[in-house]
Amino acid sequence: MDLYSGYINRLIAELSVLPGIGQKTAQRLAFYMINMPKESVEKLAGAMVEARNKVKYCKCCFTLTDDEICPICSNSKRDHKQIMVVENTRDLHAYEKTGRYEGVYHVLHGAINPSMGIGPNDIRLKELIERLEHDVDEVIIATNSSIEGETTAMYISKLIKPTGIRVTRIASGVPVGGELEYIDEVTLSRALDARVEL
Amino acid sequence: MDLYSGYINRLIAELSVLPGIGQKTAQRLAFYMINMPKESVEKLAGAMVEARNKVKYCKCCFTLTDDEICPICSNSKRDHKQIMVVENTRDLHAYEKTGRYEGVYHVLHGAINPSMGIGPNDIRLKELIERLEHDVDEVIIATNSSIEGETTAMYISKLIKPTGIRVTRIASGVPVGGELEYIDEVTLSRALDARVEL
Repeated sequence: MDLYSGYINRLIAELSVLPGIGQKTAQRLAFYMINMPKESVEKLAGAMVEARNKVKYCKCCFTLTDDEICPICSNSKRDHKQIMVVENTRDLHAYEKTGRYEGVYHVLHGAINPSMGIGPNDIRLKELIERLEHDVDEVIIATNSSIEGETTAMYISKLIKPTGIRVTRIASGVPVGGELEYIDEVTLSRALDARVEL
Repeated sequence: MDLYSGYINRLIAELSVLPGIGQKTAQRLAFYMINMPKESVEKLAGAMVEARNKVKYCKCCFTLTDDEICPICSNSKRDHKQIMVVENTRDLHAYEKTGRYEGVYHVLHGAINPSMGIGPNDIRLKELIERLEHDVDEVIIATNSSIEGETTAMYISKLIKPTGIRVTRIASGVPVGGELEYIDEVTLSRALDARVEL
């Protein structure tokens, strides 16, 4: 017998595919939505579809943005000779919140992970190398301090070092195994200050 | 400066209104959605709007359903002389999963909570009393064992007792302060077996 309602079951199933949303949470969210004002549900649904369809990748650093070129890349006050390489837009956001970094970014959208079949060509690495043809002084590697992040850092370092461009890695003030986006601003700032040559 | 993108910011803001979804989780969900296939996002958004707009309250027991009368109320094999009173549809679902209950339900959609200004007229209590005009042997009160749930149970008991209909309360095998929907099926079954006269 179909408990509840087919509509609610379908909604619970759809919500369960989201990361960190189990069956119980999906149920709770579904029932909450049923009791929300009609307009609020439509606004939420609209925001999802609109964000999915309209957000672009910055043509320069590949962060997610509404424009062709993101506000950071198009800001002439930022130091375009210093590029911080991060795994994703959330990590960029984490460093922006420190207010300590004045260079630009490069968002890889992933990290090298051989066991998952993710190689150097599956992240935005080629695009980083292309950017180095312009005038770049330093590449700061700020991938996560996970195995994948460290692997990616080593890979990028070996690739760039022959060009003579300075390659640094944010200091291991970042707890080993930690995810960059959850770390407090002070620790992130210290890790930037204590960055070391690779 | 607008970090990320206006579309993503709007989506994060919309997601943050959901219960149990904080800023960080909203961010994580938003970025996940950006990377979902377009069709999947549209399916999820569609399921939300459809469930909100099409789900009805059963005209008999007030559970959420796709039909005028829910599958339980329209099932002639269920014992319509036994009514279990629950706070919400999730609690009904929790008891259905035990497979131990063969009567019907009445969903109050809340509990009496004077401090929040929720009185007997703000829940589906009048509708329960109206149902007692038909042939009813027993009302089993299965509201939560929270203060509000107990208050509601006492209130309903006092209201029904003069009619001579048997009023029972599920046993306190349910941990005090616990929420019915999170309790395992064995405990729920035992609580049903050990129900006591009120």
